[in-house]
Amino acid sequence: MKLITIYHQEKELPALLVNDGQSALPLTAVLGDEAPASVLDLILLQDDHLNDRLKLAQENPGEGQISLQDAQLLAPIPHPVRNVICLGLNYQDHATELKDSFGKQRQVPEAPVYFGKMATEIVGPGAILKRHEGITNAIDYEVELVAVIGKGGTNIPAEKAFEHIFGYTIMNDVTARDLQQRHTQWIRGKSLDTYTAMGPALVHRSLFNDPPELDLSCAVNGEIRQSSNTRQFIFNLSYVISDLSRGFTLKPGDLIATGTPAGVGMGFDPPRYLKAGDVVTCTIEGIGTLENRVEA
Amino acid sequence: MKLITIYHQEKELPALLVNDGQSALPLTAVLGDEAPASVLDLILLQDDHLNDRLKLAQENPGEGQISLQDAQLLAPIPHPVRNVICLGLNYQDHATELKDSFGKQRQVPEAPVYFGKMATEIVGPGAILKRHEGITNAIDYEVELVAVIGKGGTNIPAEKAFEHIFGYTIMNDVTARDLQQRHTQWIRGKSLDTYTAMGPALVHRSLFNDPPELDLSCAVNGEIRQSSNTRQFIFNLSYVISDLSRGFTLKPGDLIATGTPAGVGMGFDPPRYLKAGDVVTCTIEGIGTLENRVEA
Repeated sequence: MKLITIYHQEKELPALLVNDGQSALPLTAVLGDEAPASVLDLILLQDDHLNDRLKLAQENPGEGQISLQDAQLLAPIPHPVRNVICLGLNYQDHATELKDSFGKQRQVPEAPVYFGKMATEIVGPGAILKRHEGITNAIDYEVELVAVIGKGGTNIPAEKAFEHIFGYTIMNDVTARDLQQRHTQWIRGKSLDTYTAMGPALVHRSLFNDPPELDLSCAVNGEIRQSSNTRQFIFNLSYVISDLSRGFTLKPGDLIATGTPAGVGMGFDPPRYLKAGDVVTCTIEGIGTLENRVEA
Repeated sequence: MKLITIYHQEKELPALLVNDGQSALPLTAVLGDEAPASVLDLILLQDDHLNDRLKLAQENPGEGQISLQDAQLLAPIPHPVRNVICLGLNYQDHATELKDSFGKQRQVPEAPVYFGKMATEIVGPGAILKRHEGITNAIDYEVELVAVIGKGGTNIPAEKAFEHIFGYTIMNDVTARDLQQRHTQWIRGKSLDTYTAMGPALVHRSLFNDPPELDLSCAVNGEIRQSSNTRQFIFNLSYVISDLSRGFTLKPGDLIATGTPAGVGMGFDPPRYLKAGDVVTCTIEGIGTLENRVEA
């Protein structure tokens, strides 16, 4: 199933993405009064029976569809339980392109570089990325596969890691590079308003292999800048979930962004940061396309 | 007013700390049906009238008190809206003691070093700090003044910063130094389960000067290790709130931990990390004492 959140008639509604991505089928149309109020609530319920009913409805959507021409697509989880957990430097090619940028000869990190992205409002497809003029002059894009935790846990063994994943979505980990460097720890440069964009759909893990090996790319104004495959991870997803959960309880709904491949604006000489009006398109195989425009 | 959260008869209750710190007066005893369900909800209401009624009750608490012998004191905000926002290296003496530890000659940072501490469950006074054997061998203490945001905002001018603060509490920013260094970004080493301890009370800003200049200290088994005053901040609170809110919306209930002074275990040669059974006591003038024991 492909879960989305739409804004329709002044309400946020969880829905299935149906009709070749043209329509939304609100969960209420499938589950009636049992429908959870949000995609996050569906995850928290951890109810296999509800999930199975939604999978069936995904195949035969039936009545109650809303055309996406009449609704606004939001991030699948617009209000996460807590900050996004991110990995830096998790593709070999990206680690290499940035090796001098942070003043170290860091080819491959010895351990996953986790950092946080503060976002209580995650923006969705079509949302405008603010320029934050006077605050940053170095806005950069990063396409990332996000694993959404379904079943929480602590000290999760690597061989059981995939059982804890509900599904996958796409994030543009928009970054103010100047702030990222100035404050040395990254959270400030990663957390400007609108700089966490996610969507279009949260696709259930049952539609992928374990581990998912997915092509992903990012284009700016149609020019491909990043193009790789998640099999290029330095630290693979089962290791990351196992490592991160050692002594730290992962919660249902946690968002783990798995890092970005080479080709970010900062990796060019001179850097190619985003400019007013630029359109950034992040695509991941089997999930879809997340497009956002920088404020003009 | 001094707000606390207690666990009493299988419920979490917001209350005033009264009777020389010996008793709790549940907010329902003062506000009846208007009482919010948590300290966080009281902050979110932003209702000056309710706050005034609580201030009066703080002075004349009256009936309905619960002895703290019959209730468990929790963190004043046990479930924050999002991760704690922390400052590293914000006391001159602490920046100096750690200057070699991270492989850099960093005497005073050029800009505030913000980082996040993931905690959806903040532990309170008396809570056990887990040893996390096999995961860390270097548990350290850090006493910190926490400013709790009352009124949210973006691009807050420094001269208005204090208007956005609801009050203050104490945090022990417990840190796994080995993980902090291994992962280079700090969030992992800062976020092990039970490593965010807070309390005892959230004291309203009206009981302090702007800025608050407060003695703070941390003792391990009665031996004072950290002792300083918040006037030693490298980046003062009004600057921090102004700087952090540039392009980033602060929310009511956000927790900003303002950094720790010299004397942490890592600053000794050899380091003096916490051991099984150690008692850590963090004290800040006008707020109280937060005591926690390391798992035996």
